[in-house]
Amino acid sequence: MWPQTTLLELFGTQLPIIQAPMAGANDSAMTIAVSQAGGLGSLPGAMLDQASLKRELRNITQATSKPFNVNFFCHQEPDLDPAAHKIWHAELQPLFDELGVTPPPPLTTSSRLPFDSTSCTIVETFRPRVVSFHFGLPKPELVERVRSAGCKIISSATTVEEALWLQSHGCDAIIAQGYEAGGHRGMFLSQDINTQPGIMALLPQVVDAVNVPVIAAGGIADGRGIAAAFALGAAGVQLGTAYLLTPEATISQLHRTALLQGKDNQTALTNVFSGKPARGIMNRMMREIGPMSNKAPSFPTAGDALVPLRKKAQAMGSADFGSLWSGQAGSLCRTLGAGELTEQLATEALHRLAALANNG
Amino acid sequence: MWPQTTLLELFGTQLPIIQAPMAGANDSAMTIAVSQAGGLGSLPGAMLDQASLKRELRNITQATSKPFNVNFFCHQEPDLDPAAHKIWHAELQPLFDELGVTPPPPLTTSSRLPFDSTSCTIVETFRPRVVSFHFGLPKPELVERVRSAGCKIISSATTVEEALWLQSHGCDAIIAQGYEAGGHRGMFLSQDINTQPGIMALLPQVVDAVNVPVIAAGGIADGRGIAAAFALGAAGVQLGTAYLLTPEATISQLHRTALLQGKDNQTALTNVFSGKPARGIMNRMMREIGPMSNKAPSFPTAGDALVPLRKKAQAMGSADFGSLWSGQAGSLCRTLGAGELTEQLATEALHRLAALANNG
Repeated sequence: MWPQTTLLELFGTQLPIIQAPMAGANDSAMTIAVSQAGGLGSLPGAMLDQASLKRELRNITQATSKPFNVNFFCHQEPDLDPAAHKIWHAELQPLFDELGVTPPPPLTTSSRLPFDSTSCTIVETFRPRVVSFHFGLPKPELVERVRSAGCKIISSATTVEEALWLQSHGCDAIIAQGYEAGGHRGMFLSQDINTQPGIMALLPQVVDAVNVPVIAAGGIADGRGIAAAFALGAAGVQLGTAYLLTPEATISQLHRTALLQGKDNQTALTNVFSGKPARGIMNRMMREIGPMSNKAPSFPTAGDALVPLRKKAQAMGSADFGSLWSGQAGSLCRTLGAGELTEQLATEALHRLAALANNG
Repeated sequence: MWPQTTLLELFGTQLPIIQAPMAGANDSAMTIAVSQAGGLGSLPGAMLDQASLKRELRNITQATSKPFNVNFFCHQEPDLDPAAHKIWHAELQPLFDELGVTPPPPLTTSSRLPFDSTSCTIVETFRPRVVSFHFGLPKPELVERVRSAGCKIISSATTVEEALWLQSHGCDAIIAQGYEAGGHRGMFLSQDINTQPGIMALLPQVVDAVNVPVIAAGGIADGRGIAAAFALGAAGVQLGTAYLLTPEATISQLHRTALLQGKDNQTALTNVFSGKPARGIMNRMMREIGPMSNKAPSFPTAGDALVPLRKKAQAMGSADFGSLWSGQAGSLCRTLGAGELTEQLATEALHRLAALANNG
């Protein structure tokens, strides 16, 4: 038995395991596999246009009647400031020269759109059991529309302050995202990465501060981590990196290879790939331009300038200029189907929990 | 019952709880209280001269026959480079001017000495059950002398690589020190703080890599954290910040006040107080000169230049220029005697472990 069942009741799932939505790294295939196995599969909506979002949601609802989650970003739209881009391009010019690629033209549109009325209409059509947000929450009227559609609303907090904000703005549960987590940090009330807490410290402080169920994220990739999260007071866990070696993950072979060589101390927070801090495996771009650069323009535009560098490097078999998102527990990843992995994680966690009371 | 008892056998203690040695923040009074309560009390030897070290060890052995730990630093002695100090003094000059204090003269000696043959002779006289080191280990001949004196040897690893190094160089147990930990990071094979893992990710990876018992440190301050550490595979825990509000702690009233206002996101790693990265509560010195400064001279000399600033500020009731060491779980600290706290932590952890298997 799970030590807490509030999340199972809230989400209608059998298992308190959420597969993290990973924009660019998973589509509906992973969502379906995880939800079918009893977890909460997630579809990342941040990089999908309307047609693609509808298609992916149709895939899910046709394949399973189990609960699932759709995730959206709610960042501020970038201003596409030409001066900021000039500074960034100047910083990258030696790399453009070295790789012999043409710098891309100035942006006229952004590659990742925040949640808006149009995406909300699609949510109202498909009515997923859970809608999760990253970088805070959308405007109150949009939150209200999502709630009225019958969806449970969750978002990520990287500090107690953010958790209290999310609770007071209508979240049904809160994801406590520790410093260890891969991909973009959900931080929205502060941009100071120096003071971001690890999950061991963050989780109990969030649990003490809020009344809603808390989901632990960051550095959790096996049954030991799941059991530890429950020990700290979590009602469930969200795992992303753990799913990156499943066949359902849509990452590149270069990314898989980097993960297979995974070490505990090979990742860092970087803003060079998007403009916002995100954790990935250290590569040349992070070492030479970052890992944090004050010349990177605002999210998500920093990454657009890197596209020709990444493509040229990839063609030569190098992952030097593309993001290799990973949390700090990448070495614990397993090459296994997403559904089977979900079941295995649950079994491991339950055994671990039982063993803790029975002298190992 | 504790899920693992290997550490209890190794140390001869009743409880798998180590009070972290905190140079400048605890003396023999805390060591005695914790050891008497069944934990492993620790005496920080790093800032004690020979006479003081002997006096403190005599205090302990006269007060208790229980096992205890003595800790030493094994950093490289600084070169007292005048050019480096000129750069650092220039960086601080506006603060010297503002506070109207005289910059101290160039150093002729270092305030913290690494473990050497003289300290080893004192260890051989008092033969504590455990000797712990920070920043790696001393020379092999000194390690061998400590072992021959019958002491168990432990040290801190901040990465799997450091854990493997410590195991192969003769450690009987390894402290996995997560990013969350207060005070100085034990890092010795790398100085890159960007890639330092949190304890949720670090601990299971260290446990998988080594054969000796692993002690979890960083962000643990109550029974939930201790239970979580066991869930992740630890054989015990080391807590420092949790003991800072005990009457036995020798910290300033300003430091206590800062801890009482503790928040999850108020600390950062900084090198401005010593020259090596250490976690403390953010204050003006960290904000304006750091938190990390490439102008800080080598450990431990960076702090000497700050002495007049700290004293002047303290006299005005300000903690702006002194180190306020704290881990990320400072808000979980309790104002309680060190012995009683040790017993309470153990009781809480055992209850938590039992509850995890029994459905909360």
